[in-house]
Amino acid sequence: METEVLEALHTLRSVRSFQSTPVEREKIEAVLEAAAMAPSSGNSQPWEFVVVTDPEVKSRVREPMLRTWGSMIRHFLRRLPEKTRRIYEEAGEMVKETGEVPVLIFACLDSSRASRTPEAKYASIYPAVQNLLLAAWAQGLGTCLTIHGSTPRRGEEEVKKILGIPNNVEVAACVYMGYPARSVKPPRRKPVGEVTHWNRW
Amino acid sequence: METEVLEALHTLRSVRSFQSTPVEREKIEAVLEAAAMAPSSGNSQPWEFVVVTDPEVKSRVREPMLRTWGSMIRHFLRRLPEKTRRIYEEAGEMVKETGEVPVLIFACLDSSRASRTPEAKYASIYPAVQNLLLAAWAQGLGTCLTIHGSTPRRGEEEVKKILGIPNNVEVAACVYMGYPARSVKPPRRKPVGEVTHWNRW
Repeated sequence: METEVLEALHTLRSVRSFQSTPVEREKIEAVLEAAAMAPSSGNSQPWEFVVVTDPEVKSRVREPMLRTWGSMIRHFLRRLPEKTRRIYEEAGEMVKETGEVPVLIFACLDSSRASRTPEAKYASIYPAVQNLLLAAWAQGLGTCLTIHGSTPRRGEEEVKKILGIPNNVEVAACVYMGYPARSVKPPRRKPVGEVTHWNRW
Repeated sequence: METEVLEALHTLRSVRSFQSTPVEREKIEAVLEAAAMAPSSGNSQPWEFVVVTDPEVKSRVREPMLRTWGSMIRHFLRRLPEKTRRIYEEAGEMVKETGEVPVLIFACLDSSRASRTPEAKYASIYPAVQNLLLAAWAQGLGTCLTIHGSTPRRGEEEVKKILGIPNNVEVAACVYMGYPARSVKPPRRKPVGEVTHWNRW
């Protein structure tokens, strides 16, 4: 198991451009099952998932997500270093294509089951989201973890209304998913030795 | 890769009782390398890791973590349903044993590299933590994701002082790690179908 798992952890990379091929229902379900195996505070399992494959619903949520992304990006895109700016530009292209992405998965938190402490709350959803990305990757699918529609400044209220998400539930992430349009290389990260401290900072 | 990765995602379980056998440095490094491959907002990689293996440092951080855990738990342990209470009691045993756990890894966020939006910030650390747990699991190690020493009410300030963590860095999680004292079964979770919504809540 070791080699394959470490390989998946090391090769998983954000995919922002997808084939139009639909994703098989069984693969989507396998991805959600893996997500729901993640740890959570006191095993509270506060997650809820809204899976969007209907083109009409996708194009409806696209509107607030694209609009809020556009107004956010306008303010700071020019100030970014070129490398980071390119990531954001590619990210913007993906939001524009929201209507054509095969699957969107909104990972949500039911506040009646989630802790109020931010660390406990978010540590009970983002490990599940990472499981989701890895289970997709292992099945040949590409994903991109985003917070479109997941914060007040990113159109969360409108997205919740479109999807019928109740008041006590908050959106924590919106994952784009589909078969990658092209093969991708492993991601580039700075060496972890630079951010590791042994026994004392 | 698919079978092994899905197996790891489905079998990973919190381990709260460890052998005293030390963990090989190469395994700890492999775990951190996997953590640092996780996605982060705009590839900001805002993580820093403090790895504690020195028994003296472990016993020093134990004090504020155990004290704040004790005062927190006193208030609500009696009110919990039996099943949840048992999880918390076992969790309490682990905190008491902090000095003897082979490795503690404090996963931290450098606020100068992290987003201020809570979702973007925590979505840039807990996926890395989940990678860490999975890389450990794949190498035969057990882990437990906790927020001891990671919030103001959990002794964060004292833990930061003991470890020399600078002011601009916050602790997001404290992972306990070592070889499991006994074999564990896959975790129990409610069926994900109960929390999945297709196209609309």
